[in-house]
Amino acid sequence: MTATDIAIIGLGKIATDQHVPAIRACRDFRLAATVSLGQSLPDVPAYEDMEAMFAAHPGVAAVALCVPPQVRYPLAVESLKAGRDVLLEKPPGVTLAEVEALRALAERQGCVLYATWHSRHANGVDPARDWLAARRVTGGKVIWREDVKRWHPGQAWIWQPGGMGVFDPGINATSILTHILPDPVRVTRAEFETPANCETPIAARLSLLTGEDAVIDVDFDFRETGEQVWSMWFDTDAGRIELSGGGARTVADGRLLSDGAALESEYARIYDQFAGLIADRRSDVDLSPMTLVADAFMLARHRRTDEFHDEQKT
Amino acid sequence: MTATDIAIIGLGKIATDQHVPAIRACRDFRLAATVSLGQSLPDVPAYEDMEAMFAAHPGVAAVALCVPPQVRYPLAVESLKAGRDVLLEKPPGVTLAEVEALRALAERQGCVLYATWHSRHANGVDPARDWLAARRVTGGKVIWREDVKRWHPGQAWIWQPGGMGVFDPGINATSILTHILPDPVRVTRAEFETPANCETPIAARLSLLTGEDAVIDVDFDFRETGEQVWSMWFDTDAGRIELSGGGARTVADGRLLSDGAALESEYARIYDQFAGLIADRRSDVDLSPMTLVADAFMLARHRRTDEFHDEQKT
Repeated sequence: MTATDIAIIGLGKIATDQHVPAIRACRDFRLAATVSLGQSLPDVPAYEDMEAMFAAHPGVAAVALCVPPQVRYPLAVESLKAGRDVLLEKPPGVTLAEVEALRALAERQGCVLYATWHSRHANGVDPARDWLAARRVTGGKVIWREDVKRWHPGQAWIWQPGGMGVFDPGINATSILTHILPDPVRVTRAEFETPANCETPIAARLSLLTGEDAVIDVDFDFRETGEQVWSMWFDTDAGRIELSGGGARTVADGRLLSDGAALESEYARIYDQFAGLIADRRSDVDLSPMTLVADAFMLARHRRTDEFHDEQKT
Repeated sequence: MTATDIAIIGLGKIATDQHVPAIRACRDFRLAATVSLGQSLPDVPAYEDMEAMFAAHPGVAAVALCVPPQVRYPLAVESLKAGRDVLLEKPPGVTLAEVEALRALAERQGCVLYATWHSRHANGVDPARDWLAARRVTGGKVIWREDVKRWHPGQAWIWQPGGMGVFDPGINATSILTHILPDPVRVTRAEFETPANCETPIAARLSLLTGEDAVIDVDFDFRETGEQVWSMWFDTDAGRIELSGGGARTVADGRLLSDGAALESEYARIYDQFAGLIADRRSDVDLSPMTLVADAFMLARHRRTDEFHDEQKT
């Protein structure tokens, strides 16, 4: 099989940190072009709009959309109408309806659409899913607490409508949850804290229910300057399982099921998966992590809190 | 065909005003029991919990859930687990995930689940859908302005999380929209006003997009003490169509396509439809009107406004 020529659209932090090295390390893809305003890579043809890129590179058969979610939809539509396969960074859009519309368009165009959830590819996730499959969950806890200034410097779009605030990292947790729990999960209660000068929450507490009324407490906070925590644990009728490090490390009943593996391996698996979908001409669009977030917004009690100022604003 | 024995769960305003007379007028159903706290009908066996009702009436094969949305899910689960077919008043739940869970449960149980949208049965809706089918929409406007104190006296649940505030009537508009427009509709902008003492919005302005970038402005307001308006119009490449009276009256290019017909006929059609679904053993759960609402909540800019006090609080 020859490598697929791919273009990266939006050369921001996640593209530079993860997509570029992952594509370069993957023998199924060849990085043929980038489209970005102002940024470029030294050895890759760079464009400022997609139409010019497609015209210059008719052989580019796939694009990876790494722009902020608020501007993703029109670029995805343009790519699909041009007959290209499309990979979407998470979250796949700002509304459920627009992702549904993309899915329908991809189907009409005979294109592959892949809505990625990178955290589902963390090392500890599949072992956790296997371990939980045969058990009944009785309760649990999710803690996702990080310092937004450290991990999202200058990303003002997070605080605009559609940027999701603390759910931008939080949706990584819901993508793991909805993947590993044996029964569907739903929100029953939500409390948001939103800075007085922002449109999206900086912290959220949720109550989830799964199976036969097992309660899962969720604590998302973007103001954590101490220990950074991306953990969840579940009690079951046969022991407890705990995932930490964003899903990298999994311990069940005191026994280590998996460890190590940084974000890099998640993106390596994403591109392996994308290559497989392209080979099979099959789309993969699971909206359940985002449905849970939309449900939380619909149910939330809102409280205003202190203004947020990012000193590193760029 | 013999009539199906049905029970009404939740004998509040909508049940008393619409479901009771609609069931009595429908030859496919027989009102066999009611379950409600405190309310009853003079000539129908009344219960305060569902378990007692099912025990006393094993022949009750269907239930109509008319309780507020916040308490609907557990009653729907209990009914489906008892093997009964279930009709849900709108909105079908407080989260998308819980309705998805009900749909999956109904399928496992071999039961019929019918998520109703009464406004879709208004006289002018199907003619509008037919008229629009062959046209390209270029723009539009939706105005749903009513006096909450007049139409929802004492319904405190509307202001609690999950009660949706002005989207309780507004979802009637989205149920019509998503039914008659030839292309999918998505929210691109939302602004909510929420009373300082409430958890849900009293007014909302939305921008929607459909087709090739046709903009539809939406104006939902619960504070309208003047003329009550439930209207929408769309401009197309071949004329304008206007629906008023909540979908009862439709005028296209100045020509009257339908008129008259009050809420009563909507509920008559709902029970005809439910009888058909039961005969076919088929569910009908379209979440698109509620997805649009969830998307609006996820995208909204929130503004606090004056406290709301319902003098008629019961």
